[in-house]
Amino acid sequence: MTRLKLGLPKGSLEQATIELFSQAGWHISTSSRNYFPSIDDPEIVCSLVRPQEMARYVADGTLDMGLTGLDWILEWECEQKVAQIGALEYSKSSNRPCRWVLIVRQDSEIKRVEDLQGKRVATELEGFTRRHLQQRGVEADVLFSWGATEAKVVEGLVDAAVEITETGSTIRAHGLRIVEDLLETRTMIIANHDAVRDDWKKSKIDQITLLLNAALTARHKAVLKMNVPVARSAEVLAILPSLQSPTINPLSDPAWQAVETVVDRSQVRDLIWRLKQAGAVGILEYDLKKVV
Amino acid sequence: MTRLKLGLPKGSLEQATIELFSQAGWHISTSSRNYFPSIDDPEIVCSLVRPQEMARYVADGTLDMGLTGLDWILEWECEQKVAQIGALEYSKSSNRPCRWVLIVRQDSEIKRVEDLQGKRVATELEGFTRRHLQQRGVEADVLFSWGATEAKVVEGLVDAAVEITETGSTIRAHGLRIVEDLLETRTMIIANHDAVRDDWKKSKIDQITLLLNAALTARHKAVLKMNVPVARSAEVLAILPSLQSPTINPLSDPAWQAVETVVDRSQVRDLIWRLKQAGAVGILEYDLKKVV
Amino acid sequence: MTRLKLGLPKGSLEQATIELFSQAGWHISTSSRNYFPSIDDPEIVCSLVRPQEMARYVADGTLDMGLTGLDWILEWECEQKVAQIGALEYSKSSNRPCRWVLIVRQDSEIKRVEDLQGKRVATELEGFTRRHLQQRGVEADVLFSWGATEAKVVEGLVDAAVEITETGSTIRAHGLRIVEDLLETRTMIIANHDAVRDDWKKSKIDQITLLLNAALTARHKAVLKMNVPVARSAEVLAILPSLQSPTINPLSDPAWQAVETVVDRSQVRDLIWRLKQAGAVGILEYDLKKVV
Amino acid sequence: MTRLKLGLPKGSLEQATIELFSQAGWHISTSSRNYFPSIDDPEIVCSLVRPQEMARYVADGTLDMGLTGLDWILEWECEQKVAQIGALEYSKSSNRPCRWVLIVRQDSEIKRVEDLQGKRVATELEGFTRRHLQQRGVEADVLFSWGATEAKVVEGLVDAAVEITETGSTIRAHGLRIVEDLLETRTMIIANHDAVRDDWKKSKIDQITLLLNAALTARHKAVLKMNVPVARSAEVLAILPSLQSPTINPLSDPAWQAVETVVDRSQVRDLIWRLKQAGAVGILEYDLKKVV
Amino acid sequence: MTRLKLGLPKGSLEQATIELFSQAGWHISTSSRNYFPSIDDPEIVCSLVRPQEMARYVADGTLDMGLTGLDWILEWECEQKVAQIGALEYSKSSNRPCRWVLIVRQDSEIKRVEDLQGKRVATELEGFTRRHLQQRGVEADVLFSWGATEAKVVEGLVDAAVEITETGSTIRAHGLRIVEDLLETRTMIIANHDAVRDDWKKSKIDQITLLLNAALTARHKAVLKMNVPVARSAEVLAILPSLQSPTINPLSDPAWQAVETVVDRSQVRDLIWRLKQAGAVGILEYDLKKVV
Amino acid sequence: MTRLKLGLPKGSLEQATIELFSQAGWHISTSSRNYFPSIDDPEIVCSLVRPQEMARYVADGTLDMGLTGLDWILEWECEQKVAQIGALEYSKSSNRPCRWVLIVRQDSEIKRVEDLQGKRVATELEGFTRRHLQQRGVEADVLFSWGATEAKVVEGLVDAAVEITETGSTIRAHGLRIVEDLLETRTMIIANHDAVRDDWKKSKIDQITLLLNAALTARHKAVLKMNVPVARSAEVLAILPSLQSPTINPLSDPAWQAVETVVDRSQVRDLIWRLKQAGAVGILEYDLKKVV
Repeated sequence: MTRLKLGLPKGSLEQATIELFSQAGWHISTSSRNYFPSIDDPEIVCSLVRPQEMARYVADGTLDMGLTGLDWILEWECEQKVAQIGALEYSKSSNRPCRWVLIVRQDSEIKRVEDLQGKRVATELEGFTRRHLQQRGVEADVLFSWGATEAKVVEGLVDAAVEITETGSTIRAHGLRIVEDLLETRTMIIANHDAVRDDWKKSKIDQITLLLNAALTARHKAVLKMNVPVARSAEVLAILPSLQSPTINPLSDPAWQAVETVVDRSQVRDLIWRLKQAGAVGILEYDLKKVV
Repeated sequence: MTRLKLGLPKGSLEQATIELFSQAGWHISTSSRNYFPSIDDPEIVCSLVRPQEMARYVADGTLDMGLTGLDWILEWECEQKVAQIGALEYSKSSNRPCRWVLIVRQDSEIKRVEDLQGKRVATELEGFTRRHLQQRGVEADVLFSWGATEAKVVEGLVDAAVEITETGSTIRAHGLRIVEDLLETRTMIIANHDAVRDDWKKSKIDQITLLLNAALTARHKAVLKMNVPVARSAEVLAILPSLQSPTINPLSDPAWQAVETVVDRSQVRDLIWRLKQAGAVGILEYDLKKVV
Repeated sequence: MTRLKLGLPKGSLEQATIELFSQAGWHISTSSRNYFPSIDDPEIVCSLVRPQEMARYVADGTLDMGLTGLDWILEWECEQKVAQIGALEYSKSSNRPCRWVLIVRQDSEIKRVEDLQGKRVATELEGFTRRHLQQRGVEADVLFSWGATEAKVVEGLVDAAVEITETGSTIRAHGLRIVEDLLETRTMIIANHDAVRDDWKKSKIDQITLLLNAALTARHKAVLKMNVPVARSAEVLAILPSLQSPTINPLSDPAWQAVETVVDRSQVRDLIWRLKQAGAVGILEYDLKKVV
Repeated sequence: MTRLKLGLPKGSLEQATIELFSQAGWHISTSSRNYFPSIDDPEIVCSLVRPQEMARYVADGTLDMGLTGLDWILEWECEQKVAQIGALEYSKSSNRPCRWVLIVRQDSEIKRVEDLQGKRVATELEGFTRRHLQQRGVEADVLFSWGATEAKVVEGLVDAAVEITETGSTIRAHGLRIVEDLLETRTMIIANHDAVRDDWKKSKIDQITLLLNAALTARHKAVLKMNVPVARSAEVLAILPSLQSPTINPLSDPAWQAVETVVDRSQVRDLIWRLKQAGAVGILEYDLKKVV
Repeated sequence: MTRLKLGLPKGSLEQATIELFSQAGWHISTSSRNYFPSIDDPEIVCSLVRPQEMARYVADGTLDMGLTGLDWILEWECEQKVAQIGALEYSKSSNRPCRWVLIVRQDSEIKRVEDLQGKRVATELEGFTRRHLQQRGVEADVLFSWGATEAKVVEGLVDAAVEITETGSTIRAHGLRIVEDLLETRTMIIANHDAVRDDWKKSKIDQITLLLNAALTARHKAVLKMNVPVARSAEVLAILPSLQSPTINPLSDPAWQAVETVVDRSQVRDLIWRLKQAGAVGILEYDLKKVV
Repeated sequence: MTRLKLGLPKGSLEQATIELFSQAGWHISTSSRNYFPSIDDPEIVCSLVRPQEMARYVADGTLDMGLTGLDWILEWECEQKVAQIGALEYSKSSNRPCRWVLIVRQDSEIKRVEDLQGKRVATELEGFTRRHLQQRGVEADVLFSWGATEAKVVEGLVDAAVEITETGSTIRAHGLRIVEDLLETRTMIIANHDAVRDDWKKSKIDQITLLLNAALTARHKAVLKMNVPVARSAEVLAILPSLQSPTINPLSDPAWQAVETVVDRSQVRDLIWRLKQAGAVGILEYDLKKVV
């Protein structure tokens, strides 16, 4: 039987990915006794693969589809070697994209990338950093770092580092300074080129992509229902975001209407406040599991 | 005041049971200071009782109602001594029924139950195993086991064991072999015969049973709502499972209809994929708390 | 930019408060590196403040708004010094209000507050206790207690204690006796008087209060939907609580109606049982995120 | 190669036993991947076996030697079936022997064992309890209990229980009353009769027993060294326990002597206090690893 | 029977204190079920008491003896009200004394205590701080702080704080500045004046004090033994600290001597290095349990 | 002031290293707030550095001295670039050296290194593996692996892996097969060549090396003391290992001698058994902290 070989990111994104697939409709269970996570879909076989290594296994067909970061696609120069199906906006703790930044000590004389000439730079993203510096005409000693990269700058083991950060707050807390952003990265769905040419595999990849996005969208949406006096209906509707047209139903009392709409979750606290002032009553907010 | 004496299974199913009752509408709280769990229903008094011992306490009226496994009902030959109200399909991690199986070492000469003649068998289900072997004409030395039963086979302390398993994967992982399934078990709601004859108690038992099942059913169902072009309505409805007829409502734009239906959660990932291709838009999935 | 200075209760209520704000629509994140919790609303700046100290900081304008217990408002005699916006009915584990009670050893000769004359009383609520005893004409030695107050009574370090309790069960478990309730307390939203006079701040305080209450209310409510034979409609409607009028919609089969209503969650287990007997079918229960 | 099959008690005594063997000179390591603990002595093969089941496996030669409680030797009537090599005075938390006691509710009418006539008694020590009651002419319903035995008395599931305790404090804390002690138990070294008749095995059993006791003794002993004025030597020596004669050595200053002795650790705090008053100086206390 | 009522410090020093008593020869065990720690000396009865409250209970005779900080003795003005038996040099993590310091934000205008005039100061050591400021002629608003005191300065809730610190590193890490040390504190053994006048109690207090100090001293000492060529004996002895005269014994080979001495543990790493170069061989280091 | 820059291995060996230094006489404390561990020797400044990266920092003088594995010295071809001061025999759990082995699936056709021709090999020791295969004339695709290397073989992502192991048991447990050992590694003390030429630094390196070895040796040694009848002295001395000559002292009773000797800890269990049979009494075993 044909099965789609799917690579899931092992490590810090692993749990969040399993939860996202669960919401999307696929239950994946991992166990310490078994390297292959089990999934309740006989058409898929899963592997847990480090995000750092994913692109290479998708590029050569060991995997048909995988989730990994743009950074590691670039590290291995796989931009053309894999099909980039789309980005997935999720992360462990927030929805901000992560950036790889050049960091130095607060008191360092390095003010721009060009000042790295002849210096030592530690990074886990060794290939990308080396090529990036070459393109900018900088010759530096780029050292592969086994984690705790920023500590090496603090301790003076190296002159600078290229490290990933979401908000930069940890970097500042250690007395380090960001010189420049080198790369903004995000989680990508990638696929093998041959898999994309196979109708069955392509359809399966598209189904998974659709459902993952349906689950992610639902996290940012909510349903609002309320009763509105017909007389103030226009006022209420003017408050609701215009893009998604609300459903309006009559109520048994002809002076009232029922209004139902899908809104961004982040707007709810302001919408409810304004809807109430505009005369809406019986306002209810519901969660959603998927939105397509 | 008359109160229903309810036995909850202590141990591995305890937390799952408390969560199921919570979803069903009864909040139970346990504390290390108090043997009696408190429940927010003055008509019920709860006790935590080992599943192994439940049937005996229900049979003799110490408890009116209890949740326990079919295996332990059989162990104590209580099939007739208690009223079996129904099965509850839930477990710690999956919905598969558990089986008591006869296990031996991979290299054992025991190929069928009859080969146990004169051998030593360890099991926690001592009475059932002894009677089962007798019925099949096998004389063996059945030893009660205080847990870690399969270890005894691995270590060679006994020739075989009768142990419970869901998937058999742990058994295989330890180099053991399943000879035969002896008993498939599941969680049962049982009641004392006198309690069943008492109208008030019977009604309370039925209410609890109804709500527990309503909660369990809701875990396997979801609501789908969508907007469908009237022109493609038949195509969409053909996709939806036929058993539960969907609710169809007109929308203000007469070219569109709103469709709402309850479906099995396990089908949602395929339904959404096909509904979208059939022209449905604005597809929303909702969770449910109870389904009757 | 004007920002509302909001004090969140640090300690035992902290996690429950952050979850309540999250449900209300504000995401707060705390970190061990930063004393200021971050909140996704640029109009608010949060501080974590001990409930014991909150009222004083709100009274003098260091904070505009805060959540704290009535007990600590009274301890510092701030009843008039802050604006009491309203009570919030929530707690770590239950919804019962907490009480400060006078406790003694089971075998103590102290039977009423007046028997404290000349005795030693330990309490964390030192000021309130001292004033309360004075008002009742009792002269006692009130000692401030750094936690584990009831232990001091058990050990005989003091004659009595004034301690907080929800159910009294811990007190009884230690062989202590409650002499009298001195104060029932609950969580309050309080605001600085100047902030209340500032239109922008008052509006922001009201918005937060509205949304917190909307979230709390939703925890106690559920939506029930069902299909009802028109012939038994009156019977079904008679079961539903009368205060919130249900929405009734026709179904395509004219012999049936769809009924939808919001009910108290605590009533659901009885309502479903009775609705089913009254002929309702397809009964569904939904959770809610907010109810206004 | 001949090897001694040694059974170690699995469960609550497991860690303490491994530590005792380590101090005695054998390093045992257990792993979740392997049922057989590894030991750094090629002449021994270890198994972890429940104390409840140990005696039966030693009696029938599945094991040559084992550590278990006297209670479980009696439960299976193995007093004659195994060789009792000796007792080991150790436990998880103290050195007190444990007792199996008959417990009832504080307010129970049961005042002596004879009052159990016709009652229900829960216990994990089912066989011993049944025989004990029979010997005293009492007919009662003895029910095997899967743990949490005392809870069954509190909850009223049974009339009495036979349970193990060290100090009785937990029993009293739950409002229960001890009617009578039925059995005092301690950890025993037992051996198979055939193993005892095998010279090599007997010698190995004796070596292990010697070293385990050497380690246990060392836990209760300490070495004291001190310098004593010759003039006060008699006074100092009179303080030291007479059984173990101290070593006395001259010092370069003829007015002083060095005294060294092994004493019970529990006496050290009093000895040092008195030795100092008797003129000893430079008192040093050393720990010991083994004492034979 | 007369018993010494001993107060042990509850909280951060509790575990270290119990370990110190264990080394000194008294085994204390605490349990969550019992407020009174048990001790294996029938002449002592222990209570766990907050260090903050200890001095008051010793002063009034509720306790005979206690361990607490000098700071809390001063807080309650108990310098004369209790007998100060001696200081104990130990702490959770180091042997440095702790200091109460005045802290402000890095950018604060407060440069000395006198600048506190009219400011708000948070502290847990409220009474001492108030008196200290009065003595220096400063009028400030001293607020009692329920923990996390330094956070209040960072957040701007107060202008300054009086907080305890060992190294000051946490304070600096939070961007705060130490203005001045107000009090150096250490752990003290204190006793009730009446207890000191009671011969039996005084003797018991002295015994405990002797043994606690013997245990503490042993932590800082080690025994070194070595063999030394007689020819280089003077050279070796010159290296050894002169205060404690080593024991020198002949060996069977008359060219060698055995030398044994007690040294400070902190010197061992340098002594061994130098002793080896001076010709000592077979150098052994032993731990000690007590040194008097 | 001159200070020795010392690199400690971060990660799995970190805690064991800190404990070894503590036993040797240097107290190192790490904190999450500070990248530089503090050490109680003003002549040393410590850094925590990944063992993988240590050799490069020692080679170029960023560090004067470091502890790392031989494997990582070879990975970076630093055999000549650093001074190898000596090996340290310790590890997390045992004293066995670790080996890098070539592993394949149980059913793989790869039987020897030469069969890797054209295959894919995952390893964390990328450089060493690549050079090793080249030297043996094998062309293979060597992929750097971010951990969980053996999983990649199990999952079929690669054909083989080069992985580190102590006993091989985990490898076998996963159904993998060891083809060949490629490298045996152990912890090494290394130093920068310039540091070795600096007298002060060389002396400090030698002192640290001496004390670390003194501590490690003490872990494998014990002191035995006993009293022996003069008549059986020869018999007893014949049992004791001949290399270290015991100290023999007369006792007051001329028929007895005191014998004291240092022996390997692993021999103690057999020595005591034999010494007792040879007539030794009062046998005591002491632990040691350092042995030079």
